[in-house]
Amino acid sequence: MDVRAAVAFEAGKPLEIVTVQLEGPQAGEVLVEIKATGVCHTDAYTLSGADPEGLFPAILGHEGAGVVVEVGPGVTSLKPGDHVIPLYTPECRECDYCLSRKTNLCQKIRITQGRGQMPDGTSRFSYKGQPLHHYMGTSTFANYTVVPEIALAKIRPDAPFDKVCYIGCGVTTGVGAVINTAKAEPGCNAVVFGLGGIGLNVIQGLRMVGANMIVGVDLNDDKQEWGRRFGMTHFVNPKKISGDVVAHLVELTRGGADYSFDCTGNTTVMRQALECCHKGWGESIIIGVAAAGQEISTRPFQLVTGRVWRGTAFGGARGRTDVPRIVDWYMDGKIEIDPMITHVLPLDRINDAFDLMHHGKSIRAVITF
Amino acid sequence: MDVRAAVAFEAGKPLEIVTVQLEGPQAGEVLVEIKATGVCHTDAYTLSGADPEGLFPAILGHEGAGVVVEVGPGVTSLKPGDHVIPLYTPECRECDYCLSRKTNLCQKIRITQGRGQMPDGTSRFSYKGQPLHHYMGTSTFANYTVVPEIALAKIRPDAPFDKVCYIGCGVTTGVGAVINTAKAEPGCNAVVFGLGGIGLNVIQGLRMVGANMIVGVDLNDDKQEWGRRFGMTHFVNPKKISGDVVAHLVELTRGGADYSFDCTGNTTVMRQALECCHKGWGESIIIGVAAAGQEISTRPFQLVTGRVWRGTAFGGARGRTDVPRIVDWYMDGKIEIDPMITHVLPLDRINDAFDLMHHGKSIRAVITF
Repeated sequence: MDVRAAVAFEAGKPLEIVTVQLEGPQAGEVLVEIKATGVCHTDAYTLSGADPEGLFPAILGHEGAGVVVEVGPGVTSLKPGDHVIPLYTPECRECDYCLSRKTNLCQKIRITQGRGQMPDGTSRFSYKGQPLHHYMGTSTFANYTVVPEIALAKIRPDAPFDKVCYIGCGVTTGVGAVINTAKAEPGCNAVVFGLGGIGLNVIQGLRMVGANMIVGVDLNDDKQEWGRRFGMTHFVNPKKISGDVVAHLVELTRGGADYSFDCTGNTTVMRQALECCHKGWGESIIIGVAAAGQEISTRPFQLVTGRVWRGTAFGGARGRTDVPRIVDWYMDGKIEIDPMITHVLPLDRINDAFDLMHHGKSIRAVITF
Repeated sequence: MDVRAAVAFEAGKPLEIVTVQLEGPQAGEVLVEIKATGVCHTDAYTLSGADPEGLFPAILGHEGAGVVVEVGPGVTSLKPGDHVIPLYTPECRECDYCLSRKTNLCQKIRITQGRGQMPDGTSRFSYKGQPLHHYMGTSTFANYTVVPEIALAKIRPDAPFDKVCYIGCGVTTGVGAVINTAKAEPGCNAVVFGLGGIGLNVIQGLRMVGANMIVGVDLNDDKQEWGRRFGMTHFVNPKKISGDVVAHLVELTRGGADYSFDCTGNTTVMRQALECCHKGWGESIIIGVAAAGQEISTRPFQLVTGRVWRGTAFGGARGRTDVPRIVDWYMDGKIEIDPMITHVLPLDRINDAFDLMHHGKSIRAVITF
């Protein structure tokens, strides 16, 4: 079938809106009509060419929501008409990882997904007879896409696509880091570095679990208002304080953070996030993705005296199990999404969405089809 | 009173066996007759002068066992005749740390302990009228010492001093790292770097909790026999394998360690210990103490994909609560100590005990009074 898609033909070039061909779903696959998709920093990172694992030409996009159109042979958990969110972290419920009860990093289709292929090693997308790479197993920058059954979360039909698409990445990453990875408890003190889309979702996750002090840290004072809107109780601009930001945060939190979150991808900030944690028990969670080759460092004494260094991917969430719950939380008013969707654009203007993000003008821009 | 003690008058010099003066216990303090004390790398580290926090002159020693002789005013939990193990990590059960339920790092007397003083800011030891520093709040290289009540674990009277003194540091550090910090579970696969006294205790802790694979890593093949004696199932000498030790360990453990333990203090090894952990959930615990100023590093990707970096001090054990239990485990045969006590020497030969340790000839040398 013919599909309208934004294609990344080359690293560092704008996306091109073209008509591409999409084959129907094979065994275990599902054809989804994408109704909305967010544009995320990860898409921009790959498009820039800085991602060493980036493949071109490809159809990017990993933060979508849509409707099942057709299911391939053997698909049992979904049927046409179901509303779904594609999952770049699938949940097969049968691999060693899914069965470990310790991680959300299902490995069932990791190798082919990393190669930009469907699980059978081929692509469903093509352009002028040449295959296009899938991206993160989702390729939501197209009005139709094919996704493995295990990489689709079935959600309630009354949830608006142009809002809950954000649960496909940013919301789940931030809220999930608080709930699943940190397992933050009521009354805790937390520090959040970087008040972009992920940081704001960490903040509202902390608000939801009843955190006491929610300290936001950002170099941009304009972020303060955003942070407070979602529950931030204190704001620190490292440029505006005298002395060391770590010592400042330890004092502000009266001993250090019970939980800290890096949402910047900056390895120097990751160290600060660890070291502002409370001696004895503070845990720091790395969410941001560092540039290739960069390393984190600290003195081992920081860990020996009780701090813990962790990371999280997709907020530690099991997609098929946890994403529908997060949709419920949104629909029940436990978390907010609407104010974070600062821009809604048609597919034709997807490159504008990247520009808005690069210039810090959007929290999240969403493309609707 | 007159006391025989091994005094560290100067960094880098042998200890001198002299008669020093000891004042009786003040409020909240206890006079203990030390019956036996281990000699540990930490004593050697301080004696060498490499420890930036080392103070001289001092009476070192932190791995003792003995009998209560006299209690100061207000002491309620101990009486003369009680058998005790002094605790360099006290347990006051009323500071924020003790009450957090998240750490064993009681802070009640940390500042004075770090200054080589009793909680009231003075010393009980003197030599020729000049005060001597206490060490780690314990100073067990003397046949009598004064220790705060909160820094004494009361143990059963039938436990032999020359064995259970080792529970005052090495045994608890190793076994506790498995039980309290890693919380390793039956069936887990673990890798232990460094098969000295701590590493062997990690190994027997893993055996006790029912670990599946217990891989020991050491540059010295002679350690293999020691490791196997306490439950090690596989041995790896990094010098004897072709290629990268991390890749070797990941393959050996079929995906990586569920838990790894650094017992070397070497920051390069600490990185290997983290990176040989299983993607998704492997946790690495730093036990070894690195040289001043050294740092650990890794790519944040290691954490984002689910590995966790932790440390432990005194095996995460609350001294007054957990040490008596470990004594019971020893008396019940759940853990072994006797074969690790390779040398028993009188106080006069304490410098020989340091030599045996430096030359790798002892697992643990114990001084008896």
